[in-house]
Amino acid sequence: MKATTLAKRRGNRFSLSGEKTFITGAEVSDYCLVVARTKPHTEVSRKTDGFTLFAVDLKKKGVDKQRVKISIPLPEEQWTLFFDEVDLGPEDVVGEVDEGFSILFDSLNPERIILAALCCGIGRFALNKGVAYASERNVFDQPIGAHQGVQHPMAKAHTAVEMASLMTRRAAWEFDNKLPAGASSNMAKYAAAEAGIEAVDAALQAHGGSGFTEDTGLYEMYPLVRLLRTAPVNRELCLSFIGEKVMGLPRSY
Amino acid sequence: MKATTLAKRRGNRFSLSGEKTFITGAEVSDYCLVVARTKPHTEVSRKTDGFTLFAVDLKKKGVDKQRVKISIPLPEEQWTLFFDEVDLGPEDVVGEVDEGFSILFDSLNPERIILAALCCGIGRFALNKGVAYASERNVFDQPIGAHQGVQHPMAKAHTAVEMASLMTRRAAWEFDNKLPAGASSNMAKYAAAEAGIEAVDAALQAHGGSGFTEDTGLYEMYPLVRLLRTAPVNRELCLSFIGEKVMGLPRSY
Amino acid sequence: MKATTLAKRRGNRFSLSGEKTFITGAEVSDYCLVVARTKPHTEVSRKTDGFTLFAVDLKKKGVDKQRVKISIPLPEEQWTLFFDEVDLGPEDVVGEVDEGFSILFDSLNPERIILAALCCGIGRFALNKGVAYASERNVFDQPIGAHQGVQHPMAKAHTAVEMASLMTRRAAWEFDNKLPAGASSNMAKYAAAEAGIEAVDAALQAHGGSGFTEDTGLYEMYPLVRLLRTAPVNRELCLSFIGEKVMGLPRSY
Amino acid sequence: MKATTLAKRRGNRFSLSGEKTFITGAEVSDYCLVVARTKPHTEVSRKTDGFTLFAVDLKKKGVDKQRVKISIPLPEEQWTLFFDEVDLGPEDVVGEVDEGFSILFDSLNPERIILAALCCGIGRFALNKGVAYASERNVFDQPIGAHQGVQHPMAKAHTAVEMASLMTRRAAWEFDNKLPAGASSNMAKYAAAEAGIEAVDAALQAHGGSGFTEDTGLYEMYPLVRLLRTAPVNRELCLSFIGEKVMGLPRSY
Repeated sequence: MKATTLAKRRGNRFSLSGEKTFITGAEVSDYCLVVARTKPHTEVSRKTDGFTLFAVDLKKKGVDKQRVKISIPLPEEQWTLFFDEVDLGPEDVVGEVDEGFSILFDSLNPERIILAALCCGIGRFALNKGVAYASERNVFDQPIGAHQGVQHPMAKAHTAVEMASLMTRRAAWEFDNKLPAGASSNMAKYAAAEAGIEAVDAALQAHGGSGFTEDTGLYEMYPLVRLLRTAPVNRELCLSFIGEKVMGLPRSY
Repeated sequence: MKATTLAKRRGNRFSLSGEKTFITGAEVSDYCLVVARTKPHTEVSRKTDGFTLFAVDLKKKGVDKQRVKISIPLPEEQWTLFFDEVDLGPEDVVGEVDEGFSILFDSLNPERIILAALCCGIGRFALNKGVAYASERNVFDQPIGAHQGVQHPMAKAHTAVEMASLMTRRAAWEFDNKLPAGASSNMAKYAAAEAGIEAVDAALQAHGGSGFTEDTGLYEMYPLVRLLRTAPVNRELCLSFIGEKVMGLPRSY
Repeated sequence: MKATTLAKRRGNRFSLSGEKTFITGAEVSDYCLVVARTKPHTEVSRKTDGFTLFAVDLKKKGVDKQRVKISIPLPEEQWTLFFDEVDLGPEDVVGEVDEGFSILFDSLNPERIILAALCCGIGRFALNKGVAYASERNVFDQPIGAHQGVQHPMAKAHTAVEMASLMTRRAAWEFDNKLPAGASSNMAKYAAAEAGIEAVDAALQAHGGSGFTEDTGLYEMYPLVRLLRTAPVNRELCLSFIGEKVMGLPRSY
Repeated sequence: MKATTLAKRRGNRFSLSGEKTFITGAEVSDYCLVVARTKPHTEVSRKTDGFTLFAVDLKKKGVDKQRVKISIPLPEEQWTLFFDEVDLGPEDVVGEVDEGFSILFDSLNPERIILAALCCGIGRFALNKGVAYASERNVFDQPIGAHQGVQHPMAKAHTAVEMASLMTRRAAWEFDNKLPAGASSNMAKYAAAEAGIEAVDAALQAHGGSGFTEDTGLYEMYPLVRLLRTAPVNRELCLSFIGEKVMGLPRSY
């Protein structure tokens, strides 16, 4: 998301211009949520104030889109949306005018929890395949899983996945119980992506060349779990949240 | 513990010979628990069968001890105990004759849980010091904790400690509820020692040279937490337990 | 390579049966090098003795092939070759009969050196892209490369690549000068694959989502460099070579 | 070194006030090198301009010292020096007035090269001990070095030490030949400290509890090599140098 969208206010209507990229599934969507500045940053006290959340009808005049060619297989297509003086009114506003970011923030924790759970699931799927292969495949009359060079990386990854899963469940429980869930959600998202990557990698390495074949269907897990280290919230932002909001260190960016 | 103790059976009495090393606090102890082979390994089906657990009175004839000089400060002294035909009877047996290992195994999980909790505590103590210092210490008019090179390693370590702590509490809850706790206890012990070391190291690095001064009292945490990666149960044994007993991989040693 | 090929000797001719997989480029090749056992393992002193290296004409009777569907893009196709009583004679032998492995071993070091150089090159290509992007891309009025969370992982990867490159050049110099190059070649191959992966990952992470777009052309580096951790010689075999042949530790497999 | 020393100029004499800490060996020294600001930072273009390097006679009036209690054993004592209007003249100046930092910078590369070599040496010493122990110590009738969980970490550390050693020798060769040596010196110092720590740790872990005994003399290597990650130049400053001066990324602090 680039923060380059601006919705100029004229009375109770808005004129939206700008662009947003990495928008998932625009080819099958009727509406798109857009957060746009509606009050100049010179008139607000915090730099996240003065934004409004809109549900923009993608058939409106002034909306255009262009597909982003992605290097990895994903279930949906990715798009850049362009807004050229799109006319919006009160009927298009989600929540309160100028308070879009607080609504958006409410959705960040559940997003992180869901992604963390996804990463744990990918990790377990990969390790199950790794254990099966390493137990059956014999070299020099020994299953390769009897070598600690194969076994210990999978044991480490298993521990990492199970710990990330505990943190994910704590975050989900806090969210369900309307408790503050930011600390757990960020730790879960960060740790689960790392654990998922580690698990896929350990399982791949246990498979040798066969891990890279379509018959095995293991490498296919890697691009998605690797993307989740970076997007939709990247590792460094999670760590900055933990450092600043959880541990109390000074802001680093 | 070297498994070189042998208790030769004569009727219902035993003659214990052999040695055991890294025995903690023998200088203040009246008794020492010793597991010794009481049935030849040729007569048992599993190699852990045929051992008996004894509570040996350290004032008995044939018991001698020698201090092991340790390179790090520890709260108790470490000893090697020597047994030379020490006479033992039914009154010295703990549990059942020839079933010493099963009793011993019962104590492994709580030991791992306690050590894991200790490591988490050391990690938190260190990170608290690291956060305080990095928030106050200014270089070029900025607190050093505002640099991600200082902040992110502490955020990673914080996450590692909190995840290890969740696993430790799961293990403790399972143990308290008489559920199988081996998987959680081994994952907790392994992960907590790693997290504790990472936490002390990140806090030290944040302190620069001052982390190595007695006034700060931070480096003092390192030798103990590092020892806990190795003893009383080392990282590799935990990983082998996880690989073999939890994940189902073949035995690796 | 599965060692399941057997060439039964009849006088000075051989009957080759078995299969070999992950054979690169068989669709454009006239011949394939095959190492096959020509003397039973019960008649040799070392288990690598008694193999012969053949240049097998792929148009010979009894040769069949099947494409292996690979999950990542590679410049050539991969094949499994099947040999069913393929008739071979002295004209098909490379080097001496029963001494195939020693010829094969001669080719291992240059292969490792070439792959190590390839990994270093991929690493540098990726880091160049990472540096360019992190220097230009501004968020909150600062280039993102000014954040140590972005900069330090790239600096670590740069160091890793440059060190692996030095080791690669030492190995190449030793090989060119007919000196023993096994230690350097294995260290270079192992370290360069790790460094290349680390470099691509750090550059990707610096790019955020845009690293996964075809316009950037960066993620495309990952599958190949990751494969090189595993094949044609995997990390664990390099480490075992270093442990056993270089450091003198006991054989581990 | 805290940059709080100020030498007020009066004609061609100076009055030095301030303090410097972590000064090694002041108890056996006659002189101490002090870099102090001699031109106000408002009158210079770069913030490292306007400093002068002095050789201060420690018996001069106004010089006091206090021992810093260090948590680890070091060959020399560490001190904080206090300067209270110490009178200095042209005879005490090293090099040119107001150009102290450029002289100081000339000494940074050789310092880094020497420290890197020290770390490599510690790493090799530790790994030699680790190999010897892991080859001789038998558990369940196998030398423990035959387990990849023991062997591979030592093989990784060996590779890291040998690569750091190549970089150290490149830096030394560049320095000896009056070529720019900053890139190599910083990479060598950073990588050698990391490799030395990894080597001591792998050797320790291979030893189990016996690595922590005075008889083995291995843990004793750890405190010094760990200090060298932090001082006299810490890991993060090396990485910032590599990121900024070598790779061309923006300044991060």
